[in-house]
Amino acid sequence: MKKMSLRARVLTGAVAAAALGAGTFGAVSANAAAPAAPASATAAADTAHRNLHQSTHLTADAAVKAARAVLEAAQDENQRVTVAVVDRNGNTVVTLRGDGAGPQSYESAQRKAFTAVSWNAPTSELAGRLQQAPNLKDIPGTLFLAGGAPAQVKGAPIAGIGVAGAPSGDLDEKFARAGVAALAR
Amino acid sequence: MKKMSLRARVLTGAVAAAALGAGTFGAVSANAAAPAAPASATAAADTAHRNLHQSTHLTADAAVKAARAVLEAAQDENQRVTVAVVDRNGNTVVTLRGDGAGPQSYESAQRKAFTAVSWNAPTSELAGRLQQAPNLKDIPGTLFLAGGAPAQVKGAPIAGIGVAGAPSGDLDEKFARAGVAALAR
Amino acid sequence: MKKMSLRARVLTGAVAAAALGAGTFGAVSANAAAPAAPASATAAADTAHRNLHQSTHLTADAAVKAARAVLEAAQDENQRVTVAVVDRNGNTVVTLRGDGAGPQSYESAQRKAFTAVSWNAPTSELAGRLQQAPNLKDIPGTLFLAGGAPAQVKGAPIAGIGVAGAPSGDLDEKFARAGVAALAR
Amino acid sequence: MKKMSLRARVLTGAVAAAALGAGTFGAVSANAAAPAAPASATAAADTAHRNLHQSTHLTADAAVKAARAVLEAAQDENQRVTVAVVDRNGNTVVTLRGDGAGPQSYESAQRKAFTAVSWNAPTSELAGRLQQAPNLKDIPGTLFLAGGAPAQVKGAPIAGIGVAGAPSGDLDEKFARAGVAALAR
Amino acid sequence: MKKMSLRARVLTGAVAAAALGAGTFGAVSANAAAPAAPASATAAADTAHRNLHQSTHLTADAAVKAARAVLEAAQDENQRVTVAVVDRNGNTVVTLRGDGAGPQSYESAQRKAFTAVSWNAPTSELAGRLQQAPNLKDIPGTLFLAGGAPAQVKGAPIAGIGVAGAPSGDLDEKFARAGVAALAR
Amino acid sequence: MKKMSLRARVLTGAVAAAALGAGTFGAVSANAAAPAAPASATAAADTAHRNLHQSTHLTADAAVKAARAVLEAAQDENQRVTVAVVDRNGNTVVTLRGDGAGPQSYESAQRKAFTAVSWNAPTSELAGRLQQAPNLKDIPGTLFLAGGAPAQVKGAPIAGIGVAGAPSGDLDEKFARAGVAALAR
Amino acid sequence: MKKMSLRARVLTGAVAAAALGAGTFGAVSANAAAPAAPASATAAADTAHRNLHQSTHLTADAAVKAARAVLEAAQDENQRVTVAVVDRNGNTVVTLRGDGAGPQSYESAQRKAFTAVSWNAPTSELAGRLQQAPNLKDIPGTLFLAGGAPAQVKGAPIAGIGVAGAPSGDLDEKFARAGVAALAR
Amino acid sequence: MKKMSLRARVLTGAVAAAALGAGTFGAVSANAAAPAAPASATAAADTAHRNLHQSTHLTADAAVKAARAVLEAAQDENQRVTVAVVDRNGNTVVTLRGDGAGPQSYESAQRKAFTAVSWNAPTSELAGRLQQAPNLKDIPGTLFLAGGAPAQVKGAPIAGIGVAGAPSGDLDEKFARAGVAALAR
Repeated sequence: MKKMSLRARVLTGAVAAAALGAGTFGAVSANAAAPAAPASATAAADTAHRNLHQSTHLTADAAVKAARAVLEAAQDENQRVTVAVVDRNGNTVVTLRGDGAGPQSYESAQRKAFTAVSWNAPTSELAGRLQQAPNLKDIPGTLFLAGGAPAQVKGAPIAGIGVAGAPSGDLDEKFARAGVAALAR
Repeated sequence: MKKMSLRARVLTGAVAAAALGAGTFGAVSANAAAPAAPASATAAADTAHRNLHQSTHLTADAAVKAARAVLEAAQDENQRVTVAVVDRNGNTVVTLRGDGAGPQSYESAQRKAFTAVSWNAPTSELAGRLQQAPNLKDIPGTLFLAGGAPAQVKGAPIAGIGVAGAPSGDLDEKFARAGVAALAR
Repeated sequence: MKKMSLRARVLTGAVAAAALGAGTFGAVSANAAAPAAPASATAAADTAHRNLHQSTHLTADAAVKAARAVLEAAQDENQRVTVAVVDRNGNTVVTLRGDGAGPQSYESAQRKAFTAVSWNAPTSELAGRLQQAPNLKDIPGTLFLAGGAPAQVKGAPIAGIGVAGAPSGDLDEKFARAGVAALAR
Repeated sequence: MKKMSLRARVLTGAVAAAALGAGTFGAVSANAAAPAAPASATAAADTAHRNLHQSTHLTADAAVKAARAVLEAAQDENQRVTVAVVDRNGNTVVTLRGDGAGPQSYESAQRKAFTAVSWNAPTSELAGRLQQAPNLKDIPGTLFLAGGAPAQVKGAPIAGIGVAGAPSGDLDEKFARAGVAALAR
Repeated sequence: MKKMSLRARVLTGAVAAAALGAGTFGAVSANAAAPAAPASATAAADTAHRNLHQSTHLTADAAVKAARAVLEAAQDENQRVTVAVVDRNGNTVVTLRGDGAGPQSYESAQRKAFTAVSWNAPTSELAGRLQQAPNLKDIPGTLFLAGGAPAQVKGAPIAGIGVAGAPSGDLDEKFARAGVAALAR
Repeated sequence: MKKMSLRARVLTGAVAAAALGAGTFGAVSANAAAPAAPASATAAADTAHRNLHQSTHLTADAAVKAARAVLEAAQDENQRVTVAVVDRNGNTVVTLRGDGAGPQSYESAQRKAFTAVSWNAPTSELAGRLQQAPNLKDIPGTLFLAGGAPAQVKGAPIAGIGVAGAPSGDLDEKFARAGVAALAR
Repeated sequence: MKKMSLRARVLTGAVAAAALGAGTFGAVSANAAAPAAPASATAAADTAHRNLHQSTHLTADAAVKAARAVLEAAQDENQRVTVAVVDRNGNTVVTLRGDGAGPQSYESAQRKAFTAVSWNAPTSELAGRLQQAPNLKDIPGTLFLAGGAPAQVKGAPIAGIGVAGAPSGDLDEKFARAGVAALAR
Repeated sequence: MKKMSLRARVLTGAVAAAALGAGTFGAVSANAAAPAAPASATAAADTAHRNLHQSTHLTADAAVKAARAVLEAAQDENQRVTVAVVDRNGNTVVTLRGDGAGPQSYESAQRKAFTAVSWNAPTSELAGRLQQAPNLKDIPGTLFLAGGAPAQVKGAPIAGIGVAGAPSGDLDEKFARAGVAALAR
């Protein structure tokens, strides 16, 4: 998540040319975008791009692919689990309740995914951090149980995959990692 | 929100070179990223970039700038309001409760912002749509009252600004538009 | 959902043979299940089967298949939607947030699915029923907006598919029907 | 919870003959169900049955029977309790607040029932598992206190019975087991 | 719900004799209750009884009886419903989800019961009152749909019975009345 | 909370004579209440009274008296607290936020009151029970912190008084006891 | 709610002398408060006072006085109601559930109080405003039913009093006004 | 938070002259405020001022200033955090989600701010208090993790600043203190 440089400039140059509805920002850009005023257009863009940054997300297709890989990995070991994929901002992209997964698994999976992406680490590892900071687990939306794994781009988290329902969190997390691995295929 | 093309390729080429932790996707990319294997690296990238898309957000600085512009516009008319800025995914970026704003204004502002960005239109206009579809207003998180305005890039919504507390929704929305306008400066 | 007859008898015969843990019902069945006591085993089964009924659900695979069909149908018309599949009991089986779908679509889709399966009818039709009973829409968890469709077996609802995010509920419901249709393939 | 084989085939053959409303899946089955096309009808059914599985539930009558047995067992020991029965999916089937049961007992009973059916074990035993995985108890909807017991068919959980309000969880659980035992009568 | 007179005096005389734990009120009553101090005992009682009133509730047994009568009445007409019984204070005493009742019925039944006992009238009648005061229905916990009926003692409400799941609220309310009627048997 | 005997008979004899509206139970009592049918009237009453029990509550006046006594006791020690009084069923009767009490005190006071009445013991004592049953504190609505005290009639809890905001729970509980003591005056 | 002038200056001069803990603002004020440096002390105060404003609240005693006046007014007309007093910021100061008040009255009273203070008008009047802006009533926490009245100082709202439980909102509001009137005594 | 003396007298003298709407307290003050009746006006004021007290709040401008100082301090150390400012009553004044802050940080920041202002101490210190009273952390709305700091006037808390998102709570709290410090500038 970096401030945009070149690409932003191009994009916000385009912004300057956008149709100006009531709710459109860039009120002065009508003439800025006019062909005769490239300089001021650029200025406007320069101003505006400082307002924007980009974030990277999994596509829905990729998230489904990961979720299915999780269920297949679980099925191979005869386990019944639920899987959830949440994005970098904690919003759920996919939930998939496997056949016969226990009712507790649905929200568990979401929370493990949320926890993994929030701290950019597997939840098995995060559970260990509670020894230093036991009240971390009181943060709303989290669950410090093995079974969550982050998906990363260049080391930065872009999604969390959470799995619940297997007899142990380690098994859950093994399946979560299978989901992450599927994203590289 | 488009599928990525060139830029994604570059980015995901970078992905292929990312450090491979337990939770890192790109399990096969260790050698894929090796200098001697550019072809398969590209293949991996091609596969992977299909998994990603980008979304555009206001920076926190820009959101604060907009929020302050709203309060100033309200102050100029001696009105006490609360303002909220939510991003394209409905997550709140800024809330700012103006001095003396009524207690009902806090959640109202957030909901107007959420509503404006969800439908990419001012909430004054959206309230009119209820004549065709009156139950739209039963969607959780929404509020169909004037006072919300979307911020757009090339016509696409990237944020919603919601204002509440003035004696009329039209006033609220005038201030919200002042917040949007501040983003172009 | 019928009381079980023959099949139940077989099943509950099996029940009688189940391992008897602390929480297992069928406390007298240890000997009832013994080969020398078929009559009393049957008696136990007769008693027990009256306690059970079966319900029919979509598999997770089928629910994913339907959800993907929805997204593809939406993509064909360049629409960004979220889809949810809930089972007969209102429990969510799948949610899938399509790329670029508005934030309001996530819970809308679930509620449309819930509404469709609850009344076993498309939500476009149910919205019409509000003329007779306007307060139906105050029932928690429901949303009386077009975009939900039930999946049926022999006319009975086994799942609801809900779609939200397109410019009109009719479009949403068209995509929901595409999801239902995919179940027959 | 097994994939259906023979029975599903029959059932889904019936599906093929179902009336085809807007929301009915099996769009091609109008002719498939025609008497002259048994083969393709079967094919359709074969396809469709892979979409379905069955789950087993207590009847409402059985759940009431169990709940009353719990209250009677408690009354025999002069205890005031609340009892809840939840199904395999965590949905509440019966709640019954005994005369004079404390206000904390109502939700406790539901959570114990939910916990017992989720892990298919008495909650007294599950409480012990917290020594290995203390954060299990942070899973929403659960309560790791003695007083919950699963009802099983062939070892698989089909319901949970939860009891709360007695001076000790062990007493609560004794009454819960009385409820499970009543299901075998 | 009247202030207590004679009976309260007796009862609070008993109060005066109660064991005095840390949290017991009546700190001076140890000797007040002593046989030699009837006057001051009475004084204490006189003081105390003004602090108490009594409320009347259905027993759990009666509530179950009513709930079962509802399900039987529904079954006689081949309908699948859920029933709830709440006490005068709005606390749920019994919920009973009938076999095959739709998922929307569970909370509907509770709300109808709550509404009926709150206004001491059938919800079919209360729905009519919305013409005068349409925002009554915005009161949390209520549902202004036919299907709820109060149980009364001397005209005062002591419980509400709510039913949901039948194709019409009128049917639901017919079954609710059957539950009320069962209380007189 | 005992089953009613004589008094109930009188009361339910009155029931039999109650006006019979649509929602009134006692459907057969029109003639039962007729002067010529005392025997069957009694029978009806006998049947009906088994359906009822009584519970004892503080009056609103008494609850206010207790709450004010709490604030005065706190003021005497220069402490700023909130007090809550809940009835035997856990329903809040009074809340009173003292001047300058911290924001955390409002819900704390209610939960302490709820906890004290649920277990009929001061919360300081209940906190000690967590050593045997640490997960008791996970029961929704409870708070195992000193500051709650039950009000009792003949040893049975009829209300809980909870106090929060003082620097220590022991101080809070001292004030709560002052509230209980005020009930005896 | 005005920016402070003279009084603030005095007060923030005091601020400058405050003990400096880790979380205390005014880091430079140690010497600023020294007697030899009045000028810079004033400067610091000038800076700081711009950070502060004052708000006016009812005392807890006053709020109880108002609440009791409400119950007495209701009792005079033989009505059973609940009353709530909320402050200017919407925080509840007092709730008082009158003997025999219906369960729906508790949250209704709070919401009416919240609504009255938010718009600084009786809720009977506010209900009329829905004709122009019907969706006002969708703002969370509000209830547009007669029964709420603001308490004012110099025309500005400092509290809201809400009453619920009487057969009509007009009666409720009459009692609320009696509570407001008691504040002037 | 002291009872008002002189200043209140002036203010409530003004009250007596306030316009008398339906909801205004001071119903008898019309003549009391008349020029010929200064004595009784004063009497009314004397009565009324006992009803009022004042509380001190940060202005919105000051809260924004503090929040921005937090983000800048974090940026200086290359950390991504969210900051929240809540007032003395626990109401949120500002939230500001920094670019790239994890999703868990938003509610964490609010809870740390709430906790710091409730106990008027840094949350790092409060976390230590859990050794004496471990269940403090079960109070709703709190979070006992370093990162919150109170802002004080004369030692009394007027706001809490909470920060979350940095790798350690100590870092979070360092930034929170930077926010407090900015208030003195």
